[in-house]
Amino acid sequence: MTTNAPAKADSRAKKQGKSPIKVIIDTDPGIDDAFAVLMSLSCAPELRVLALTSSFGNVRTEKATENCKKLLRIYKSSGSRKGSEDEKGDEDDVVYVAEGSKKALNGKQKEHIADFVHGKDGFGDFEKDKEDLLEAKEDVEVYPGGSAKLMYDLAKTYPGEVTIICLATATNVVNAFREYEDLPKMLRSVVHLGGAYTVSGNVNPAAEANVYADAEAADELYGTHGVDIYAVGLDVTMNVRMTEENLIKMRDTKYVKGRETLTDEERQFLFNSSQFYMNYHIKSLNFRGVLQHDSVCVMTVIHPEMFEWTRARVRVATESFARGMVIMDKEGEKNWSFENAWTERPLMNVALTADFEAIEKALMERFI
Amino acid sequence: MTTNAPAKADSRAKKQGKSPIKVIIDTDPGIDDAFAVLMSLSCAPELRVLALTSSFGNVRTEKATENCKKLLRIYKSSGSRKGSEDEKGDEDDVVYVAEGSKKALNGKQKEHIADFVHGKDGFGDFEKDKEDLLEAKEDVEVYPGGSAKLMYDLAKTYPGEVTIICLATATNVVNAFREYEDLPKMLRSVVHLGGAYTVSGNVNPAAEANVYADAEAADELYGTHGVDIYAVGLDVTMNVRMTEENLIKMRDTKYVKGRETLTDEERQFLFNSSQFYMNYHIKSLNFRGVLQHDSVCVMTVIHPEMFEWTRARVRVATESFARGMVIMDKEGEKNWSFENAWTERPLMNVALTADFEAIEKALMERFI
Repeated sequence: MTTNAPAKADSRAKKQGKSPIKVIIDTDPGIDDAFAVLMSLSCAPELRVLALTSSFGNVRTEKATENCKKLLRIYKSSGSRKGSEDEKGDEDDVVYVAEGSKKALNGKQKEHIADFVHGKDGFGDFEKDKEDLLEAKEDVEVYPGGSAKLMYDLAKTYPGEVTIICLATATNVVNAFREYEDLPKMLRSVVHLGGAYTVSGNVNPAAEANVYADAEAADELYGTHGVDIYAVGLDVTMNVRMTEENLIKMRDTKYVKGRETLTDEERQFLFNSSQFYMNYHIKSLNFRGVLQHDSVCVMTVIHPEMFEWTRARVRVATESFARGMVIMDKEGEKNWSFENAWTERPLMNVALTADFEAIEKALMERFI
Repeated sequence: MTTNAPAKADSRAKKQGKSPIKVIIDTDPGIDDAFAVLMSLSCAPELRVLALTSSFGNVRTEKATENCKKLLRIYKSSGSRKGSEDEKGDEDDVVYVAEGSKKALNGKQKEHIADFVHGKDGFGDFEKDKEDLLEAKEDVEVYPGGSAKLMYDLAKTYPGEVTIICLATATNVVNAFREYEDLPKMLRSVVHLGGAYTVSGNVNPAAEANVYADAEAADELYGTHGVDIYAVGLDVTMNVRMTEENLIKMRDTKYVKGRETLTDEERQFLFNSSQFYMNYHIKSLNFRGVLQHDSVCVMTVIHPEMFEWTRARVRVATESFARGMVIMDKEGEKNWSFENAWTERPLMNVALTADFEAIEKALMERFI
């Protein structure tokens, strides 16, 4: 693949003395995905987003593809940034979009699409009367080869430099690894938002949603040798919250050139989307505000030092009511008397806890 | 059933102003079982041991029955106590022994009997050249009806008063509940030594040995309505240890009338047994000493206030590598969007943590 190398994004981060980390965001937007994607695109000079690949979970894959395009359009067309002559949103700042799998590895579609959390359109249904307003501007093309090919093409273009941030099921990454056996070793790392290690899940007591929705894929991803794998799950993300007060602050703050924050258009969109999502949190957790699962996952790439990483072997249960349960064996914790299903697994990095306050502060600085 | 009511044990505890709690100890001795059983018989006036029922795990059931009888003989024939005119060990202090199941609920025998932990004879093989020395004195009869009938008969004799302390798989208790449907409501409580909730298991990262060896039984026990169920697992018991130094102290201390401690004969037997068990801990945990899993479980009945009890719904995975994994849903923690496999389960009491120092101190006061 040849890319129109987005020189300006690079040069922008280089002003800060660092090369940005090249990322592919695998996502099923989803309101918390929207926060994470817009932050990555708009106010994370530490990252250079090469592509968005769509997956199922919060919405079905077709809708996720539409939503990826929509987020890109909101980002690119932000009047407030354009007015300020910001480099981001430039014509040659290419961000690819590719469509991923519609089904889990076992061939099944997801049983419950999370429209009770994110609304039917994935963005809180606030635009339901004018659904095609943003859809109309077909300025974002979908990469014809699909997500596996795009992941591989980008990894070949930037060997050893690309991190895949997987904010949905592990399906797309595993499909890419199955199709291109040399891909794992060509990546910088894979980060997965998933799992409930020391806490209850959110689908049921055993399972977190991203792992549950394709437990076979998560088990296969966590068993991949040759690539650094990071996972951050509910143990951490349940502790990073955005209050209604901060949502309102976000809406009312104005974009100022030179600050790494969202634009006015992005803020307004995220605020509107968040109302449906907040209602879910009021009902399920009695919390007036929203959780920031996906943005926390992006933060593991920007600020890995804010997380406490445990080296561990991890398996994912796939059967009966335990389906989606992540079960870890910590490095060197035990001297097992017999070989077990963990023995030959690679060590991966799991965030079981973190500096929650620091993460929240770092996020709010970009959102507000 | 008519019992020769052990009036003296009762009167002894009543001196302290309390009626002793009537317990049936379901056990697979096992060295840590030996500590727990001898403590319960010999130096726990808070308890009145009505019966020992045998189970498989550390040894096979037949051997467990023999070992229960052996522990009773050591207790009854302790010269140091008899010499001191202690009331315990009296002729009319009846302790029944009944044999339990040889197989798990699924009809299978345990794959690995834990002879690498407890020795072939369950007591560290230190008497292997004179195996029949204690066996010869056949003064303990085995209750002919088996463990289920004995549990039921005792519960009928003392309705609402009997606690079953299950130090092995849940098999015998579940078999009794299946055979006698009114039994759960006739008991004071059931305490199970089992599970690894927030820590890795000891069979493999998913599973603790007692739950693993009959996962179906544990799942069924934890789903029983109408009886108070308590579980204490590795989360607590891994933190209560007896050092080699204390083992030596135990051996060298002499019985003094009036102190609630083991007799000299009991100490010597436990010290000798412990050497094999300690070697296992040196190899597996690099710890010179022994863990006290079973005695900790008995302590939940004597000193429940030393444990932090979480009310929770618990399921046990039975399939594939997750087999034996306990998965809990805490009371009121979540407002689940959909019914799940925990929804209709009763709340039970799980000790996830405890005052480890206090438990250790309370145990050492009796052992030393």
